[in-house]
Amino acid sequence: MKSHTEYLWMNTPRRKELVHITPLLDEILERSGISDGFMLVSAMHITSGIIVNDNESGLHKDIMEWLERLAPEDPSYQHHLTGEDNGDAHLKRILVHHQAVIPVTDGKLDLGPWERVFYAEFDGQRRKRVVVKVIGI
Amino acid sequence: MKSHTEYLWMNTPRRKELVHITPLLDEILERSGISDGFMLVSAMHITSGIIVNDNESGLHKDIMEWLERLAPEDPSYQHHLTGEDNGDAHLKRILVHHQAVIPVTDGKLDLGPWERVFYAEFDGQRRKRVVVKVIGI
Amino acid sequence: MKSHTEYLWMNTPRRKELVHITPLLDEILERSGISDGFMLVSAMHITSGIIVNDNESGLHKDIMEWLERLAPEDPSYQHHLTGEDNGDAHLKRILVHHQAVIPVTDGKLDLGPWERVFYAEFDGQRRKRVVVKVIGI
Repeated sequence: MKSHTEYLWMNTPRRKELVHITPLLDEILERSGISDGFMLVSAMHITSGIIVNDNESGLHKDIMEWLERLAPEDPSYQHHLTGEDNGDAHLKRILVHHQAVIPVTDGKLDLGPWERVFYAEFDGQRRKRVVVKVIGI
Repeated sequence: MKSHTEYLWMNTPRRKELVHITPLLDEILERSGISDGFMLVSAMHITSGIIVNDNESGLHKDIMEWLERLAPEDPSYQHHLTGEDNGDAHLKRILVHHQAVIPVTDGKLDLGPWERVFYAEFDGQRRKRVVVKVIGI
Repeated sequence: MKSHTEYLWMNTPRRKELVHITPLLDEILERSGISDGFMLVSAMHITSGIIVNDNESGLHKDIMEWLERLAPEDPSYQHHLTGEDNGDAHLKRILVHHQAVIPVTDGKLDLGPWERVFYAEFDGQRRKRVVVKVIGI
């Protein structure tokens, strides 16, 4: 079994944003030399997540508006008693989940025809990391 | 380390449906010859997901009605400007998550006593795939 | 490839509770002798989940109140026709997801600076299990 680990640094211009990272993951896979196994993509900060869905800008707006309805910004979160103002971002991370495991087959990410991987930032405008670890043969 | 990959083809009679796939996964595990490791089960289309929960028909109705409340069908999704009508299905996939990793121990899926695996279709009535990859020893 | 499996027994005093389990996972990793790979942490009962987020008590209250809004206790769930009263707990498990995969690097859980792992109990006060499986080298 081989293992290969890299970290992506994200720093989004906007506070909330979806960033398409599939091309970066393709490059990491190539550097890993692994042709069959699993790639774990996991947001290391607790106010961001990973989404595997369609690369369509209208849908991306729908996703962000939907998350705002289900986990809205709200000054009354108890987390804000610590001085933070990002309670909603913690909840949004839980809802979309913070990670995905991508199968690797024949040296490629084994995604469906429309599956693309997105970093979902809910409290950005600063440097944050995503761990990408590939294990396999 | 060994690896074994298969694809399930799904084609549900109804647009929205939960399909119990644990028996199919048991068969794949047996064909893999792997006795200890991880099985990844991941819906490759962006309008379906994977749920690990109880095989109880009343609960399944509760799940589908609950998803309809949290991510309702709605003609006003911006994704529909592309000609699609399945914006809700993309959001439901995000909410339930599109995949699960099942531990494999002593040649069996290491599930809890009531855990069963379901393919969650939110835009069916056509052929769609699920990737199942087992890695281990 | 090596593999190591343990089961945590949980029995929370309250029906709903978040339990910090990172220290237990650190101990399991040390016993595994694995320095690079993946640790799967998966709640085996269908009314509990796993959350990776901040260890901050105000946020924990926010999470539990938010889940109560999105997946409330309600006597009218069809699942309750079986005699159960925990329909909401099944839905909460789906929303937070029932598992997480933690990367293992240089003999440590490769978590972000504030990432901590929590067992999320939604129908407790009885013995329930969590499977922890580490695979790697």
